[in-house]
Amino acid sequence: MAAALDFYFDFSSPYGYIGSHKIEALAAKHGRAVSWRATLLGAAFKVTGGKPLPEMPLKGDYAKRDFQRSAAFHGVPFRMPSQFPVSTVAAARAFWWLHDRDPRAAVALAKALYRGYFADDVDISSAENVVRIAASAGCDAEQARAALADQAVKDRTKAQVDASIAKGVFGSPYVIVDGEPFWGVDRFDQLDRWLATGGW
Amino acid sequence: MAAALDFYFDFSSPYGYIGSHKIEALAAKHGRAVSWRATLLGAAFKVTGGKPLPEMPLKGDYAKRDFQRSAAFHGVPFRMPSQFPVSTVAAARAFWWLHDRDPRAAVALAKALYRGYFADDVDISSAENVVRIAASAGCDAEQARAALADQAVKDRTKAQVDASIAKGVFGSPYVIVDGEPFWGVDRFDQLDRWLATGGW
Repeated sequence: MAAALDFYFDFSSPYGYIGSHKIEALAAKHGRAVSWRATLLGAAFKVTGGKPLPEMPLKGDYAKRDFQRSAAFHGVPFRMPSQFPVSTVAAARAFWWLHDRDPRAAVALAKALYRGYFADDVDISSAENVVRIAASAGCDAEQARAALADQAVKDRTKAQVDASIAKGVFGSPYVIVDGEPFWGVDRFDQLDRWLATGGW
Repeated sequence: MAAALDFYFDFSSPYGYIGSHKIEALAAKHGRAVSWRATLLGAAFKVTGGKPLPEMPLKGDYAKRDFQRSAAFHGVPFRMPSQFPVSTVAAARAFWWLHDRDPRAAVALAKALYRGYFADDVDISSAENVVRIAASAGCDAEQARAALADQAVKDRTKAQVDASIAKGVFGSPYVIVDGEPFWGVDRFDQLDRWLATGGW
């Protein structure tokens, strides 16, 4: 079977959220699996000099409008979170903790965290809210709570973030397949053609 | 007739160049005209804190690949210029000078300048190269040369750049229609739907 698509995302990224609704159907269309990889854009911004969109004059106002319009365009439920952006360290740690036990469950957790933040306005920077969402997704709450405080889980998450930056990931969503990088939901059309033709 | 699409672009923008190949057919499909508006992204970057893509670690390398792939995806001839980005002040002045005499001729000049820079690797930061391209597009070379040194043309161009920033334009291409903003060739699909439905 052909290699999986590496799907990098940050839990505070509206476009990552929209992409999370579309990536599996796109991959399946071409007989590919998806490897979900939570990352932390803040760490990448330290390398690129980037910053969160809302902090940028002109671009920030445009972005808020574009989040809503892009979600509507792609048919994805979206409600602008009261707090945006937020730290997604706890969410990423929960993801990688669960990933190492059950990758499929980690994908379900990722979708639940995204839904919590971008549809239900739950502040996922709160570790306790992450635990609550993990519990609703089938995890043991006590184990999840302990995992978020576990140094090994912190180290594992940091290693994944460092690895994503080493791969060149500076935005969300970011897909790498067979060495070819695609940044943004708005490159999914190019990704689709690339998967169909094997080149460009 | 419905209002024209305002199509903002910088002559050093690969995505503006790609957009220049697509905007007229898209507008015509919906019975709209296009109002071409050269601007200078450097002035907008001073407001947003943005900078040219090649200067950004990680993102710069991605961008160079994305320029080529996006041009191929959209079927637009593209050759990465030897010098990139370059100052497009002379090109913008030539555009606005001609625009005030013959808007249709200014569109033809815009296409010739874009082709010179992104297909034929002509350095359009050079006023003399701009004059040469203007002459090949049917302008009188002496008049074009004089125009580039004319304070009134400089002021006219600066006023247009300031007006674009006042409208929120921070990137290229940038389309505004009936008050709705669309940044990037990758929003032309949303623009297409918006023109069809009048909303989102």
